[in-house]
Amino acid sequence: MAPTYTLYHGTFIQLPRHIPIDTKPSLGINTGVLWVSNRDGKIDGFDWSVNPDLEEALDLFVKSKGWSVWRDGVDAKDGVETVVIVKGGRDGRNGFFFPGFIDTHIHASQYPNAGIFGSSTLLDWLKKYTFPMEKSFGAEEEGERAPPQAYTVYNKVISRTLSHGTTTASYFATIHVPATNLLAALCHQRGQRAFVGRVCMDNLVFCPDEYHDAFSEESVSATKEVIEYIHKLDPEGKLVAPIVTPRFAPTCSHAALSGLGRLASSYSPALHIQTHISENKNEVLLVKELFEKSEGYAHVYDETGLLTPRTILAHAVHLTPEERALVKKRDAKISHCPASNSALGSGLCPVRTLMDDGITIGLGTDVSGGYSPSILEASRQACLVSRLVASQASVTTGRETLSVEEALYLATRGGAQVVDMADQIGGFEKGMYFDAQLIELGPAVESISHESSHDVVLGGTEDTGNVDVFGWENWEEKIAKWVWNGDDRNVRAVWVSGRLVHKRGV
Amino acid sequence: MAPTYTLYHGTFIQLPRHIPIDTKPSLGINTGVLWVSNRDGKIDGFDWSVNPDLEEALDLFVKSKGWSVWRDGVDAKDGVETVVIVKGGRDGRNGFFFPGFIDTHIHASQYPNAGIFGSSTLLDWLKKYTFPMEKSFGAEEEGERAPPQAYTVYNKVISRTLSHGTTTASYFATIHVPATNLLAALCHQRGQRAFVGRVCMDNLVFCPDEYHDAFSEESVSATKEVIEYIHKLDPEGKLVAPIVTPRFAPTCSHAALSGLGRLASSYSPALHIQTHISENKNEVLLVKELFEKSEGYAHVYDETGLLTPRTILAHAVHLTPEERALVKKRDAKISHCPASNSALGSGLCPVRTLMDDGITIGLGTDVSGGYSPSILEASRQACLVSRLVASQASVTTGRETLSVEEALYLATRGGAQVVDMADQIGGFEKGMYFDAQLIELGPAVESISHESSHDVVLGGTEDTGNVDVFGWENWEEKIAKWVWNGDDRNVRAVWVSGRLVHKRGV
Repeated sequence: MAPTYTLYHGTFIQLPRHIPIDTKPSLGINTGVLWVSNRDGKIDGFDWSVNPDLEEALDLFVKSKGWSVWRDGVDAKDGVETVVIVKGGRDGRNGFFFPGFIDTHIHASQYPNAGIFGSSTLLDWLKKYTFPMEKSFGAEEEGERAPPQAYTVYNKVISRTLSHGTTTASYFATIHVPATNLLAALCHQRGQRAFVGRVCMDNLVFCPDEYHDAFSEESVSATKEVIEYIHKLDPEGKLVAPIVTPRFAPTCSHAALSGLGRLASSYSPALHIQTHISENKNEVLLVKELFEKSEGYAHVYDETGLLTPRTILAHAVHLTPEERALVKKRDAKISHCPASNSALGSGLCPVRTLMDDGITIGLGTDVSGGYSPSILEASRQACLVSRLVASQASVTTGRETLSVEEALYLATRGGAQVVDMADQIGGFEKGMYFDAQLIELGPAVESISHESSHDVVLGGTEDTGNVDVFGWENWEEKIAKWVWNGDDRNVRAVWVSGRLVHKRGV
Repeated sequence: MAPTYTLYHGTFIQLPRHIPIDTKPSLGINTGVLWVSNRDGKIDGFDWSVNPDLEEALDLFVKSKGWSVWRDGVDAKDGVETVVIVKGGRDGRNGFFFPGFIDTHIHASQYPNAGIFGSSTLLDWLKKYTFPMEKSFGAEEEGERAPPQAYTVYNKVISRTLSHGTTTASYFATIHVPATNLLAALCHQRGQRAFVGRVCMDNLVFCPDEYHDAFSEESVSATKEVIEYIHKLDPEGKLVAPIVTPRFAPTCSHAALSGLGRLASSYSPALHIQTHISENKNEVLLVKELFEKSEGYAHVYDETGLLTPRTILAHAVHLTPEERALVKKRDAKISHCPASNSALGSGLCPVRTLMDDGITIGLGTDVSGGYSPSILEASRQACLVSRLVASQASVTTGRETLSVEEALYLATRGGAQVVDMADQIGGFEKGMYFDAQLIELGPAVESISHESSHDVVLGGTEDTGNVDVFGWENWEEKIAKWVWNGDDRNVRAVWVSGRLVHKRGV
């Protein structure tokens, strides 16, 4: 019989659930114990009064709960609950539990192109690199299953994102139903929380030959197929959910957009929706041309029923004040993708302005417009971009600058709000899923004496990555060092709904 | 007896030595053999007609040269030259030799602060984080040796930069002579090519209490002490050289600047000089105020004899056209530090404009204004910044955008020009020092069959980093993937003057 609970002990760091407007969040840092029910993968409680470094304190705590420590193959006495104990990092390694990252915008199918975009910007990049790659996810013959490439790439994407601590991802797949279903199945099997969307694109003016929906009804009917598949795969939607995915206005007819809007609202609760908006100036002009009757880009989505509280709009670099007001009014969400916006030269997204408007924002990697599948990298880039926005202001107040804590807020709490799961993921509150990563920054750099200084040249110690802790740093400083120089080497383990889905090293 | 030569075989990738203005460089990709004389660490020749994958071809080549393969403890016959053979990467691991990176601007003493700068910008960051850290490198009592902290930090900086493939660094130390000498000694001992500068700052208006030169003569005399130490340490200047280092105009009196200018020119050849220029708008205003008689920031350095062909000016984000013309006229060099400029919100350096002016540019990490000691990260950031410059242009031609190859050019050839060693480092020409890194991107991602797809969750294969090669990429694409997602895990070995100074794994 499986253990009733898993008890995690050590340091738990998270961001506050709510930030009053005009204040900067501080890290919530607690040491103690937190236990997760293995029945539903949810946090059952925590106790920050237990000293996690004292074995006796742990023993006492376990006894006080009436639990017995679980042993494989040994059944507990009737009625006695069992517990497995997991330590938060090895001694002296600066370990801590952190909420799993939420990637609110990632194109799983584009992953093999990560880092390949030459000097292109959005529209030529799509035609030169992206569409040909996505096209290769089609089955050889209609009705057949996805090609081997889809298995390879989708497994790799899941492995990579998990290894970087991403516990929830909102994926764009391709237009192909079998490959999209496969992505959903793999996420379900591997245990990554995911929204999986079949990409819709029926506008032949912009879409390439041989990679588009035949007509607007196909956008809707093929999406429906995927929705049904995912609902069968995960009837309660505990891990994987469908998401309606019109690529973006330039690739979709008004009929397809409206059909998808109706489709999303025909379910109860309404389905999630994801698309792109105002990423690039030329794209904005193109939408103006294609939808000349609409007041703006956001209005195109609004008029077709796609601007909802469950809609994720990626990018939003060039929204007008009127569009921002509309997005806010509809409570639609924004996925900020700074690495992508810089890499494709799309521009500097004015995140502070969006935040001041009260719009809900999370982070996205936007692979492969973004070059990295890491939300830690996205957090870093969000900080950089905000500093560059500040540098462009005529009067520099520094307010535009995102703090490290704000970036991490967007990466966890913000992302949870964006996927409309703020009560379920993004933090360590009771009743939330235990979606978490165990981070280890590594041991402090030791003093090197004169005599031995020539010995360190070819030393072969364990690779704990590029964060160097010297020993004098407080937790805020250590977290800053993690954000700026951390990578997947610092991610020792990842859990989704309490299930271990990635671990690293011994 | 040591072997006469080391023969490296495999793929060698480099940038062209000269790029005609208005053209973009292409990668120079060759496979074959290259041999280095172990007498002086210089490249003695190469032959791209030898197939490095065929053992017989290697044997034949070695015989044709009249060499015998070196065996430890076995002396070759009189007059016979011996050779050690080094393979460029393991089979199927996408390995290649690349010129070592040149970091033209790094503050070794600030390394423990990497990633810690809060929301500050240049001037408050210096006061809050940087000066206190630098101050701690002082000896307890005058005349004593450097504190243990200096050993620890400087060794760590050398280890980290070597591990990222930096074979040459131009270091700022602190104002302390013993610690600066120590840095030079450690570089010499560990085998990293370095310029080491004792930081000069005597302007009490800006400098903090207890961390400044007592008077302008001290700036000069203390610098002289370090120069003499380094000249004794490395009389021929084969590995480590002194560099005159006025921190920047706001911290220096006119007398100190002039004294240092005279000092540099009193040597033959004239000494290298390094300082900062026009990093931040408020700094530019401050210089205007402090040096009201000067026409501009660059003019302050020119008037004090500091604007020379051997001068490295870090940043140059906000130079006026007149200043750019002056810098070009004096043939002074610029160290572009994009990670730092974004992290401190200094602004977007218009690199293309500087290049079009014909100014020589290299890359700098600017640790710890820059958060990372990696020049690969600086290359990536240079690409991102140039794309953002392009996005700000009223008409976007895409010309502003640095290609991956241009960024790597700056990281190697450009850096070599900046430190006035273009004939000696930065490429694989005959007669150059073998300053090189062996990169392995890792094996191609393999197809995963349906059946085994659930086995990959907790797999524990060798960690080859975040670059995923799928097998269809040409070298240009693999290099792009390296620039965008590579890190120190891809650096298998590093040589300076043919000496192995870093290796990774087995």
